[in-house]
Amino acid sequence: MTLPKHVTIREVSLRDGLQIEQPVPLAAKLDLLAAVAATGVREVEVTSFVSPTKVPALADAAELAAELWRYPDIAFSALVASPGGASRAIAAGLKSIEYVVCATDTFSQTNVGRPTAEATAAIADITRIAHQADASVEVIIATAWDCPFEGPTPPQRVIDIAAAATELGVDRLSIADTIGTTTPRRVTDLIAALRPVIDGIPLGGHFHNTRGAGLASAYAAVSAGVTRLDASVGGLGGCPFAPGATGNIATEDLVYLLRDSGIETNIDLPAAIAAAETAKAVVGHDLPGAVLRAGDRKLPADDDR
Amino acid sequence: MTLPKHVTIREVSLRDGLQIEQPVPLAAKLDLLAAVAATGVREVEVTSFVSPTKVPALADAAELAAELWRYPDIAFSALVASPGGASRAIAAGLKSIEYVVCATDTFSQTNVGRPTAEATAAIADITRIAHQADASVEVIIATAWDCPFEGPTPPQRVIDIAAAATELGVDRLSIADTIGTTTPRRVTDLIAALRPVIDGIPLGGHFHNTRGAGLASAYAAVSAGVTRLDASVGGLGGCPFAPGATGNIATEDLVYLLRDSGIETNIDLPAAIAAAETAKAVVGHDLPGAVLRAGDRKLPADDDR
Repeated sequence: MTLPKHVTIREVSLRDGLQIEQPVPLAAKLDLLAAVAATGVREVEVTSFVSPTKVPALADAAELAAELWRYPDIAFSALVASPGGASRAIAAGLKSIEYVVCATDTFSQTNVGRPTAEATAAIADITRIAHQADASVEVIIATAWDCPFEGPTPPQRVIDIAAAATELGVDRLSIADTIGTTTPRRVTDLIAALRPVIDGIPLGGHFHNTRGAGLASAYAAVSAGVTRLDASVGGLGGCPFAPGATGNIATEDLVYLLRDSGIETNIDLPAAIAAAETAKAVVGHDLPGAVLRAGDRKLPADDDR
Repeated sequence: MTLPKHVTIREVSLRDGLQIEQPVPLAAKLDLLAAVAATGVREVEVTSFVSPTKVPALADAAELAAELWRYPDIAFSALVASPGGASRAIAAGLKSIEYVVCATDTFSQTNVGRPTAEATAAIADITRIAHQADASVEVIIATAWDCPFEGPTPPQRVIDIAAAATELGVDRLSIADTIGTTTPRRVTDLIAALRPVIDGIPLGGHFHNTRGAGLASAYAAVSAGVTRLDASVGGLGGCPFAPGATGNIATEDLVYLLRDSGIETNIDLPAAIAAAETAKAVVGHDLPGAVLRAGDRKLPADDDR
């Protein structure tokens, strides 16, 4: 097993993190963004262009997008659920679009009002819209391991979406453990099954820590060659299907683990802990991040290194 | 990478879990023990025979030991810190002794009042005492990766203790991430360094989730061939060096992860969750176990398996 030398962490606290929280003011989001930017992170999923009725916490997507020029070193992305959302994101100036396709029909129907096949077909339009504007497209395959309604997702459904997305010319793919149920072995197996159909397209992973195995799954993905991971400072972002459960893997926990595995992330750990403190203040409640609570370990003295 | 088919989980909630809690009555411990026994677990670290002044929560070690005949299918062990403790554990009827040696001098001095070399030398006496009574001995190497005072532990110190213990005829070895700082890569590296000196003696791992990487480290150990892991229902057991931080890896989280990796543990997941609920009631506060909060995932229907 050879570990990669570098992993790109995409900070998702502003989108996946805030999505199910009570809406916070734009000024508070800008505070969080400033704290996140100070970590050195190079990719930030900043909002989504979806129905403001369905996701009121992100209804200020265009207003937030208008502030992003302040951070020229960060590649910002926004999540969309339809070609219309993609057009709005492009109009707001985004150069990186994430389009979610749910791998199970029940979840897809609940989430976006259409089954997986229809959502998959829309990849064509979204890719055209993005590429015409020189923006890139990532397809995120949601419920890639389990669906809260249907149980285990047949891997072939994930493979079919990935193959279609590859055929339709997307720039990146990602597999998402939407409800936080997967474990390292299942991660390793799904990545191995996907490799032959994705034609070398960069593959990312999105893990939740809902059942404690989020970091273990992330490390399994990295061990299988994945070099793109989503994380959220403090672990901001609960799971609507598991009340009280923890959400996204915490950026500072992931940075800690990868640093001590000899893997660079470009993210400064003390700054990530500070950003998690900001996130806590923004949402006004405790967050589950472990390194946020326990702090860094005592490192080797400089003259021992 | 070939995963083992079976991993033995040793339940440590009654010792490492309760150790830093306010003392609870013997009757409450027996409730927890009954709940733990109902999980199907075959090994339980039940108490320690150490100074009651230093660890008042476990001052009832002999009284608790007198109740263990109720569970003939469980192999009970007790932790000791000296030959005197080993004699008391044997006198109380224990047939499995765990002797802790701290790999760093500062921690050893603080913990047991003598440096690592002296603590290592005592393995001889303890092994003689145990073997004369037909009891087995496990040496647990504490602060195997990091010391709260000294920082990173030089691996050679761990190797030297393991080599001495092997030479002195102990039955099992274990490496403990006492302050919850290690990560999968460091686990893999230390296990690889130990293999050549331990002469095939069974090697176990003891991980804390203090910085979120406990399960990832446990899975790394299993991937490196370790088939013995400690865990505590609900994750009972904080770390005295990181106030507010989570402690032992949670039994139910570990069982969940191993089950979904195709590894048998003999432990029933719903019973482990129920035991975690009992642990919560016994100590009167919330516990960090993730599966305790979120529950099991939706499993395949029986006719799909």
